[in-house]
Amino acid sequence: MRLHSPVVLPCDADCSVLRDAVVDVADDGRIAYCGPRADAPAFSGPSHELTGVLLPGLVNTHAHSPMTVLRGLGSDLPLLRWLREAMWPAEAKMTARDVGAGMLLGAVEMLRNGVTTSAEMYFHGEQLVESVLAAGSRVVFGAAILDLPGTPWRPMADEISAWIDADGLRSGPHERIELGYGPHSAYVLSPETLAEIAGEARSRGALFQVHVAESLDEDVAQRASHGSVPRLLESSGVLGGRVLSAHSVHLSEEDVAIYARHGVGVAHCPGSNGKLASGIAPLRALLDAGVHVGLGTDGPASGDDLDLLEEARLAALYSRLSTMDASSLGAASALLLATRGGAAALGRDDVGALEPGRWADLVHVDADDPAFATGLDAPDEQVLANLVWAAGARRVTDVWVAGERVVAGGESTRVDRRAAQAAVGEVSARLRAS
Amino acid sequence: MRLHSPVVLPCDADCSVLRDAVVDVADDGRIAYCGPRADAPAFSGPSHELTGVLLPGLVNTHAHSPMTVLRGLGSDLPLLRWLREAMWPAEAKMTARDVGAGMLLGAVEMLRNGVTTSAEMYFHGEQLVESVLAAGSRVVFGAAILDLPGTPWRPMADEISAWIDADGLRSGPHERIELGYGPHSAYVLSPETLAEIAGEARSRGALFQVHVAESLDEDVAQRASHGSVPRLLESSGVLGGRVLSAHSVHLSEEDVAIYARHGVGVAHCPGSNGKLASGIAPLRALLDAGVHVGLGTDGPASGDDLDLLEEARLAALYSRLSTMDASSLGAASALLLATRGGAAALGRDDVGALEPGRWADLVHVDADDPAFATGLDAPDEQVLANLVWAAGARRVTDVWVAGERVVAGGESTRVDRRAAQAAVGEVSARLRAS
Repeated sequence: MRLHSPVVLPCDADCSVLRDAVVDVADDGRIAYCGPRADAPAFSGPSHELTGVLLPGLVNTHAHSPMTVLRGLGSDLPLLRWLREAMWPAEAKMTARDVGAGMLLGAVEMLRNGVTTSAEMYFHGEQLVESVLAAGSRVVFGAAILDLPGTPWRPMADEISAWIDADGLRSGPHERIELGYGPHSAYVLSPETLAEIAGEARSRGALFQVHVAESLDEDVAQRASHGSVPRLLESSGVLGGRVLSAHSVHLSEEDVAIYARHGVGVAHCPGSNGKLASGIAPLRALLDAGVHVGLGTDGPASGDDLDLLEEARLAALYSRLSTMDASSLGAASALLLATRGGAAALGRDDVGALEPGRWADLVHVDADDPAFATGLDAPDEQVLANLVWAAGARRVTDVWVAGERVVAGGESTRVDRRAAQAAVGEVSARLRAS
Repeated sequence: MRLHSPVVLPCDADCSVLRDAVVDVADDGRIAYCGPRADAPAFSGPSHELTGVLLPGLVNTHAHSPMTVLRGLGSDLPLLRWLREAMWPAEAKMTARDVGAGMLLGAVEMLRNGVTTSAEMYFHGEQLVESVLAAGSRVVFGAAILDLPGTPWRPMADEISAWIDADGLRSGPHERIELGYGPHSAYVLSPETLAEIAGEARSRGALFQVHVAESLDEDVAQRASHGSVPRLLESSGVLGGRVLSAHSVHLSEEDVAIYARHGVGVAHCPGSNGKLASGIAPLRALLDAGVHVGLGTDGPASGDDLDLLEEARLAALYSRLSTMDASSLGAASALLLATRGGAAALGRDDVGALEPGRWADLVHVDADDPAFATGLDAPDEQVLANLVWAAGARRVTDVWVAGERVVAGGESTRVDRRAAQAAVGEVSARLRAS
């Protein structure tokens, strides 16, 4: 398949803007060529003429998407009360089927917003993965691991280890599924437990996803006992493999240096961090230190619209406000966080950019919108600004995963969206009533 | 006309959520009844069954919408450089026709986002007003008044005064047009000039719209010479009539008290204030002091998507972050800023709420969306959260102004959107080339 578009954004390190360019997709679902049409190799397969902006599928580095069934609950509570009073009691009642229903709608919704890959920390992984496969997106699943009275951590860790050993780290059509570990946080798990889980992840090359320094309460508690969460992770031997530190709001300069030293990826979640009054992560400092940073919506009960391009805008707004510097994060840098940066934060080099060999996960943003009225022929910087600041996800019309069109005309080609909404409605009503 | 909807938000002071309710529109375009269907008076006219959430048209309290022709320019510059290097040079080349083209697209775009009234500070008022009348929205026009070498302020003030004296303060079908004064700021106009303009506005009952304490640079300069901009405005005798203070980022406690004492309205523009790294306005303190606060997109070159519900989310995020309190601004309060609060900030009691006697400016947000999958029958707080945090403007399908449907199925019923986009494209290309 060949896609031809007036503007193609490969999301290379410079955030180039290619004009009159094509993306060729090989039969195996990977990109064969991305560049100017004039330089493209001969091509004989089916060809599609697009009229807007073509870019890589967005990479959501931190989500709990099955929480679509809890969306709108406890909207004005701070993090720890929101967890304890609204989320955890409801989640305790969720069945595997509920998780599947929530994930199906979440995946469909994200695809419509241009998100083709999401890192999901949640439980009932089998049903979650099944829904991802049904929707046609990609997931980096981090099996949630807690340690609570009556819910010890070891069986949860053993279960995901056995699953990885059985199915392999990546599986499913076009490797849509990656399995890994999702130990909740250093305030729910001991340093020793975190280290044991990290060892299991490292030996399998799997991603270790963990919440770090999200709220000030958590940060204060951890600083009192261990200096900081990154120091705790380092001194416990957790760092070294593929580690994704979600949120990472309350980091010191030393914490940032620890992350840079160990190649830790960060999932920056500005929307959720604002809604729950958690704070503003030191994005500029992380990027300046060379840390790989991606963006996360967090779950739809705190990052309600699952819109990663809104997170990109928020990342730029927060960065500009916290540094009082309007050049602190431009449209190009914000877009790279949502694509290439996200892939790097997850330790993945096969998504997040339009380069030969990577999966042909693609998003087409229609230019028939006031957002682009100043013209696709405007200077590069203006087109990028129009995409990020004005168009956003609203005008995503078509999305491909491994070359398969999974969204056409803004709707899923695989899932009956209304049926998925109705299923979530039923779960939500039952959780309210019980 | 009667509109019946499963959820109606009248945007009364308590932000009530009415179930199974109707809005009756009288032949004069005003609301005759808003309340439960069971209590509604007998009605014999045409009736429409809606399936989502019906709320008042949103009130954008600060905009320069003709700047759709400049959207995406200078996106990474701080305020004063952005004005001097990107905006003012381009604006100097704009003709009256350019302003008309820019405003037409801006009005259409805002209507699609549910914004039925906007306060516009700009020049070439005749063409601006003509475009508003063509699109079918409402405007509170503040004629831009500057005082620069070669561009003295007096003729600009005289022109708008003569216009008001000729046409009246409010005019056009269903009073869609309100005229007023838009003196730029206290760093462009002297205190004496501001006071003279304020006198002309007050004697006509007109709104005086002015930029106040937007950037730190401006604030520092004004504090050095006058204590603060609000003090300058008070001591010069500017305050007392209908005054709208746009931005108002860098305010002290005393400044807030001055505003409360004189009934000054504030146009809070969180998106623009973030993008230009201006800072975060003390929203909670203003509201606690009883100041009427509305939301503004600012112009589409800094509030690029002209989406007032995104501004509502940003207002809540900034307020929660700056107070570190997740209950600082809930979904209901954020929605009221975009509606009732905006009307009050403009000194208008005829828009911004669904109450008998106010204009029937209405917005229908479709519930056939993942945002509302947890159900319109969920608790009030959850429905409000789903509207503000998840649905936003994306699902606005129908908009009425004075009972006339001006948006249907997400498109203008009056303006050819593509032609409006093309016209802006031509202007934009010409401005770039010249």
